[in-house]
Amino acid sequence: MVEKRDPIQVKEAVSRVMKYSKTGELEHVSLENAEGRYLAEDIIADHPVPPFDRSPLDGFAVQSKDTKGASSSNPVRLEVVETVGAGHVSTSVLKPGQAVRVMTGTIMPEACDSIIMFELAKEVNENNQTYIEITRSFEKNDFVAKEGEETKKGEVIVNAGKKITAGVIAVLATFGYAKVPVAKKPVIGIYATGTELLDVDQDLEPGKIRNSNAYMIISQVKQAGGEPLYFGKLEDNFELCFKAVQEALKEVDVLITTGGVSVGDFDFLPAIYKKLGANLLFNKIAMRPGSVTSVAEKDGQLLFGLSGNPSACYVGFELFTRPWIQTYLFSTKPYLESVKGTLKANFPKANPFTRFIRSKIAFEHGKVVAQPIGMDKSQVVTSLAYSDVFVALPGGTRGYKSGDEVDIILLNSEGDSAPFQDPVKSRKTDQ
Amino acid sequence: MVEKRDPIQVKEAVSRVMKYSKTGELEHVSLENAEGRYLAEDIIADHPVPPFDRSPLDGFAVQSKDTKGASSSNPVRLEVVETVGAGHVSTSVLKPGQAVRVMTGTIMPEACDSIIMFELAKEVNENNQTYIEITRSFEKNDFVAKEGEETKKGEVIVNAGKKITAGVIAVLATFGYAKVPVAKKPVIGIYATGTELLDVDQDLEPGKIRNSNAYMIISQVKQAGGEPLYFGKLEDNFELCFKAVQEALKEVDVLITTGGVSVGDFDFLPAIYKKLGANLLFNKIAMRPGSVTSVAEKDGQLLFGLSGNPSACYVGFELFTRPWIQTYLFSTKPYLESVKGTLKANFPKANPFTRFIRSKIAFEHGKVVAQPIGMDKSQVVTSLAYSDVFVALPGGTRGYKSGDEVDIILLNSEGDSAPFQDPVKSRKTDQ
Repeated sequence: MVEKRDPIQVKEAVSRVMKYSKTGELEHVSLENAEGRYLAEDIIADHPVPPFDRSPLDGFAVQSKDTKGASSSNPVRLEVVETVGAGHVSTSVLKPGQAVRVMTGTIMPEACDSIIMFELAKEVNENNQTYIEITRSFEKNDFVAKEGEETKKGEVIVNAGKKITAGVIAVLATFGYAKVPVAKKPVIGIYATGTELLDVDQDLEPGKIRNSNAYMIISQVKQAGGEPLYFGKLEDNFELCFKAVQEALKEVDVLITTGGVSVGDFDFLPAIYKKLGANLLFNKIAMRPGSVTSVAEKDGQLLFGLSGNPSACYVGFELFTRPWIQTYLFSTKPYLESVKGTLKANFPKANPFTRFIRSKIAFEHGKVVAQPIGMDKSQVVTSLAYSDVFVALPGGTRGYKSGDEVDIILLNSEGDSAPFQDPVKSRKTDQ
Repeated sequence: MVEKRDPIQVKEAVSRVMKYSKTGELEHVSLENAEGRYLAEDIIADHPVPPFDRSPLDGFAVQSKDTKGASSSNPVRLEVVETVGAGHVSTSVLKPGQAVRVMTGTIMPEACDSIIMFELAKEVNENNQTYIEITRSFEKNDFVAKEGEETKKGEVIVNAGKKITAGVIAVLATFGYAKVPVAKKPVIGIYATGTELLDVDQDLEPGKIRNSNAYMIISQVKQAGGEPLYFGKLEDNFELCFKAVQEALKEVDVLITTGGVSVGDFDFLPAIYKKLGANLLFNKIAMRPGSVTSVAEKDGQLLFGLSGNPSACYVGFELFTRPWIQTYLFSTKPYLESVKGTLKANFPKANPFTRFIRSKIAFEHGKVVAQPIGMDKSQVVTSLAYSDVFVALPGGTRGYKSGDEVDIILLNSEGDSAPFQDPVKSRKTDQ
């Protein structure tokens, strides 16, 4: 009576989705609006850094040969002929025995080859003329920041695929990127299905709940770097849903639906995929929550059928939709990053499927630990608010206890270049 | 000749800034635009979860007393009188021996008190009537998700001060928050000072560099949750700068300037603070980069004088401006989070000041490690692009080596409720 579905591993499901990954079109955005986007091209230095020999501090630019033999008992006196601030260029033609007072960042006066910081020069005023007395000698290039010593012109500074943070923006500004090459954001359509769904501003009524998945997914799409396009809610009516999905596909790069993917009488997505002539990539994954997550493909366009349960919906997006979006954006780390750490709670019940437990990461004396938030039923939205990681517990014949080493999936890290590997129980843990 | 400044510890500097912290005005934003803001009020459940007794799976709602004595040898047959999907309410008045087919999320039919999942019920059709046969008995409430079992009405679900993530948005939607109470974003004015500064789209010329700090700070302000207001660049001209600062203060909550805080001839910020009659909180901190970071206060309004060196500027913002902004937003974790971990490089040279080393965090077999990016001069913008943490090395008489335990300051975590503690060398490390 109930349709039998064969579960596949998470890794296999990700791999089936990513067969349809592609990169987006290039566009240029202004530097002010580049934050959070991903570089679509390498950043290349359009000039050396520093761009010229300059003073790295407030001091005096001198000709080092003038300082030869200077000592406490035999101080050398130099005549200060000009003061130059950063951004200005010295106009003096220096004679032997002369110096220029310069500020941090000032381009080296032409004849000078060494900088003496304020603290090492004693200023003396005589007849309205300033002199400095120095008591040690300096070598050519002493305290000079040399052109190109940090970066050569033409060097690749930041690679394509990097998320644009404040630090990347500083680099872009330095090298004159007023317009930044990024991938166009993919348009991610969203439909929430279910006759039970009310709008957020509606009062509750018997049998109904408010639509939380759509708003959550909108936020997840934004965080992943996509452009959400929310179409609204759909009642459980086959023809209505079919038409809506068919039309939506014309306006989006991929389409997410929430709900309707299980085996209930009104779970219409399987039939919709069929009528569309879409190729079903999978409809059962060996994971909890989210085992009914389904993905289909029609002419290269993906339809993500996420579960109607909020937590299952959340997990499905992060594991399957996020890497597709981030690859589109040229990210070189489209997958969630997984690290090893210590579980801080007991999960005594065995489960045949890999479980994703909403948890909070913490660091104890240099070690990574994960504290499950509790109440880990897939219907519970509450604990999603406080999760920043998922603990991935491998399926099998036994439970887990506090202190076990587990895989911890980071939800807020920059990501990983390698996809999630379904965790396998270590021999040690199994014994 | 050179002004003598007395350095204070980072913690003391933070504490002087935070004496002038305050929380912002409340405003309501639509749920779609709430992402990344901070909750200004607790989220309270306006209804229990589940809001009614419901079926957590696809199955049959029955009266448990009808199943008494059922076994493989003595199956009980029930008549299926109705099929009800989620969002609908059963209209049947059940007689003994009858059942209702229900889908996941459906409100319990009135007379029913137990759910039998599809897999445990054998469907039989006779004379156009569907029956189910069951071979075990069920108790009252078996497989029923009870009203309020996850959350009671009136419970605080998420506390004020929490950053609004996708998970929080799901909670807000569930409880009907179409409008979300948040703090108004503080307006953070930004002026970049220095005659040497070119606009990003200008070609280089001798002695000049492009303005990178302003764009970096705009991005940092956004990340911290503030509203950046960039006023532009200022030449090193005292009267011009004074007027600009004086006028800008009228339009902002706090004002950031970059550059002009050191002891050079054209470092005018100290004199501007004086002429404004502002109260100087500090102008020297025992840290590198950013030792010249200065903060002044005028009638309760803060003026952050950040260094002109990009890395020093970055650090100054994160340590001092960020916690002020985040406190304004009601965040309960306004400070950067610091964790213990292992240094993965040598820093053989001693330094009297606490050093913040741009680094990348990694996790090795459950342990936190930090890999310095390299080239850690305060002028170098390049390494900012790849940093996600700062290693904080305590000042002292010796250097550090790979393998030492150090403080690692996370730049992308949700933050910490406690301020940064200047690291102190452990006895063990000191020996």
